[in-house]
Amino acid sequence: MNYSDVVNEKSGYEDFLASCEHAKSVSLLATVDGLLQWDEQTMLPAAAGDFRADQAATLAALTHAQRTKKEQGERLEKLADSSLATDGPEVVQSTIRLLHEDFQKQSRVPGRLVEEIARTSIESQQEWVRAVEASEWKKMVVHLEKMFSLKRELATCQSPELDPYDALMDDYEPGARWRSVDARFSRLRKALAPLVRGCFESTNRPQDTVLRGAFPLLSQQTFVRQIIEKIGFQFERGRLDTTAHPFCSTLGPNDCRLTTRWDEAFLPTALYSVLHEAGHGLYEQGLPVDWFGLPPGEATSLGIHESQSRLWENLVGRSPEFWEWCYPLARKAFPESFDDVTSDKLAEAVRSVEPNFIRVEADEVTYNLHVMMRFDLEREIIHGNLAVVDLPDAWNERFEADFGKRPPTAREGVLQDIHWPAGLIGYFPTYTLGNIFSAQIMNAAQQAGVGLAEQIRAGDFTPLLHWLHQHIHAFGRTHKSEALVERVSGESVSEKYLVESLYRRYGPIHGLSADPVEFVV
Amino acid sequence: MNYSDVVNEKSGYEDFLASCEHAKSVSLLATVDGLLQWDEQTMLPAAAGDFRADQAATLAALTHAQRTKKEQGERLEKLADSSLATDGPEVVQSTIRLLHEDFQKQSRVPGRLVEEIARTSIESQQEWVRAVEASEWKKMVVHLEKMFSLKRELATCQSPELDPYDALMDDYEPGARWRSVDARFSRLRKALAPLVRGCFESTNRPQDTVLRGAFPLLSQQTFVRQIIEKIGFQFERGRLDTTAHPFCSTLGPNDCRLTTRWDEAFLPTALYSVLHEAGHGLYEQGLPVDWFGLPPGEATSLGIHESQSRLWENLVGRSPEFWEWCYPLARKAFPESFDDVTSDKLAEAVRSVEPNFIRVEADEVTYNLHVMMRFDLEREIIHGNLAVVDLPDAWNERFEADFGKRPPTAREGVLQDIHWPAGLIGYFPTYTLGNIFSAQIMNAAQQAGVGLAEQIRAGDFTPLLHWLHQHIHAFGRTHKSEALVERVSGESVSEKYLVESLYRRYGPIHGLSADPVEFVV
Repeated sequence: MNYSDVVNEKSGYEDFLASCEHAKSVSLLATVDGLLQWDEQTMLPAAAGDFRADQAATLAALTHAQRTKKEQGERLEKLADSSLATDGPEVVQSTIRLLHEDFQKQSRVPGRLVEEIARTSIESQQEWVRAVEASEWKKMVVHLEKMFSLKRELATCQSPELDPYDALMDDYEPGARWRSVDARFSRLRKALAPLVRGCFESTNRPQDTVLRGAFPLLSQQTFVRQIIEKIGFQFERGRLDTTAHPFCSTLGPNDCRLTTRWDEAFLPTALYSVLHEAGHGLYEQGLPVDWFGLPPGEATSLGIHESQSRLWENLVGRSPEFWEWCYPLARKAFPESFDDVTSDKLAEAVRSVEPNFIRVEADEVTYNLHVMMRFDLEREIIHGNLAVVDLPDAWNERFEADFGKRPPTAREGVLQDIHWPAGLIGYFPTYTLGNIFSAQIMNAAQQAGVGLAEQIRAGDFTPLLHWLHQHIHAFGRTHKSEALVERVSGESVSEKYLVESLYRRYGPIHGLSADPVEFVV
Repeated sequence: MNYSDVVNEKSGYEDFLASCEHAKSVSLLATVDGLLQWDEQTMLPAAAGDFRADQAATLAALTHAQRTKKEQGERLEKLADSSLATDGPEVVQSTIRLLHEDFQKQSRVPGRLVEEIARTSIESQQEWVRAVEASEWKKMVVHLEKMFSLKRELATCQSPELDPYDALMDDYEPGARWRSVDARFSRLRKALAPLVRGCFESTNRPQDTVLRGAFPLLSQQTFVRQIIEKIGFQFERGRLDTTAHPFCSTLGPNDCRLTTRWDEAFLPTALYSVLHEAGHGLYEQGLPVDWFGLPPGEATSLGIHESQSRLWENLVGRSPEFWEWCYPLARKAFPESFDDVTSDKLAEAVRSVEPNFIRVEADEVTYNLHVMMRFDLEREIIHGNLAVVDLPDAWNERFEADFGKRPPTAREGVLQDIHWPAGLIGYFPTYTLGNIFSAQIMNAAQQAGVGLAEQIRAGDFTPLLHWLHQHIHAFGRTHKSEALVERVSGESVSEKYLVESLYRRYGPIHGLSADPVEFVV
């Protein structure tokens, strides 16, 4: 059912439509704020940061005031008790329920706090850029302490009944609770341990040297644009720009903006970050346009979002069949680079496992270790068991335990992510949840006959994208993440598909078995 | 007196400060709207236009509501009657007077009209882009009729006591009245007629062929960035981007954005458009940062703005001494292009006078004819003497009378400017007023010993910029344009400096006298 069908309903929908129009106007303001943020990270002149923080804070306060307007609350109360909420069309029921839940949660937060978080987020990100440049942790302490403290306050305001870390996670992964996430992560960690160890100790690992060399910026740009256009990203409804920390931002129903960084000496940096962000973009471009600004037109969670980005980046993009398809494009873009390399070797080179200090450069096998560490550290801070000032030591110790070495600098350690300065606390676990979802979803897709090797080899990505549209994108936020994965796969969420996928795709090329032995035991 | 000094005043300034803070918060919202507009013209994906129109309209309405808040009006009434308004520091007096005038004018306009103009402006600009591509006038009629009608309504609302065209001009050139502008333009037209005719008939005009060839985009970008950085544009407080219709936009006290178009076959297109926009940018960057968002920190008029852009573009940028200075840079940027050309020849080539269909490509001598024609046509529409639908015929007839030929297509005629679709009606005359001001200001500057040939030849632009800062930029909006020019030059505004300058700089290179004979007679 389209939103326009609802608009055309003769009667009984007056309050519903009024609530929706109000929510859409709030979302419109939020997209303006989105533009301020996007611009801040891609375009803003160096000296303009302070004023941008003022702009963002003002707009955040304005948006919050609009979002929590009393009349909207009263209307939603009334609607929640109406027959539409129980007997209306399914999408209308979901919309009422979600708008009402959102409103209750958000109206418990004072505007002052929203404004302060917005301002602190921008200021602290700007300090972070300087801190990373200087690889100097010290000055970040006061900013991060403030940010963690504000977010703890936010947690208590918006969901006083929840554990504060759960309250924060709930903003990114509705319904997720840290104890069950923690249990799932522990199982995953245990199951992956032999593969990680095996890969680290492998004397026969694929080398990524074939992907190092001279890859001129303009050629890279043409190359990756071609690829993401081919998998289905619509450039008339989006853009690709340059930034320090890649992201995907939606500024309107037909305005989805990807960003990346470029490394002229190492092709995978941009290629895989763009494939990743394009995966996010395909989800955003696949959401029902008609419902933009309302729950049925919104992504359901960051975990599902990440499942889409990781699916295209890894499950498609790091496969031998993908490289078979894009090999001629790569040869054309970089005529001198791949003279003596087969597409199979390239597909192996992008699956080399090695301890890496930097999460966003980590391979698929160790990536989840990076995430789990951040999940544990940030949770401990929110729970009051770890002080921000002690973060570097805690980070380095944990990193050494997991990877067998210590980051030599703060830039390669605790300073590497923008999330904490930006106030994105409770966000990290969605990366690994997304990996788990992605493997289970891809398995279901292939069972249904799409995303198969022969299709990808032929550059025929449409069946897979179409299937994802139908089974994931089309629902917007009307199903929670786990329910959606269960619905699409016919079984409960399980990390087993991820484990099997990693063993199968990474074991043999590191001279190991494809069988998750430890896991099966 | 800085704004921070006012903030530190012990007492008696409470209402003043409250009014200023309110005005600053309005201006902050206006800069967010500015970002929506800038982004729309430089970055927006093709399909995202409709939603951007919604965003701009919503923000315009919100800004207007904030701008015309009752409490602000009451505070300003009180202030206007207070002793501060008559005995306070000069800058405080001006601020009170201007905030009060602005408020009265703006609060007479209904929010609905503001919102409708904003939406129509974006929609109609988007239609214009399509119309220009197809060179098809027809579909523009309904958009332009709506826009002219809305602006006529706006004129009547905001200044019912004024002639509607004067009311519109007043938004861009406060205090300007069409009868006196018209008289000034007629004198200018008459004085320039012999020069225009002489140039058109000249068999000895400089050729611009030396500026045609292959000028790769990246080399051009480096070249023009170097130049504007050298004349004083601060890139840490600004940017330069690509657009269809060049403009300069201020999005914050340290965020001034220039845009240009590039022609890889003709160097002057980008060079002079960037020099022009940088002239605007130098003015914006020269306004008192401390007063940002308040009258002492705002440009006084578009005419003065244009005087700054034309001064750098033409009086500096088209001089032999400028080319002497930048010749080595040009050789370096385009090693094969200027082997057999002297800097003098280049300086002459950028002063070739020929009838050109396109205003923004017109030479300095004929440029004002383009402006006067638009001034007459748009005024006739506002006065109800010309219908939008008859605009192409009126345009073509007038063009033929002035230039001796008719535009072969709508793209080269009535469709060429973004102003009318954007709702910028009453804006065109400020271009020629700016030319008049620029010549008089440059004359005063040179009398004061800055902007002299030997300084420019040596690449020493600082004395001129510094002088402009002190005598023009520093005053913000506290003096109206004519008063400012009189103050800086010691005499009434007169077109005579522009006439003399054009005869002197264009006569001899077209085989004519440097003496404005007709004018002197």
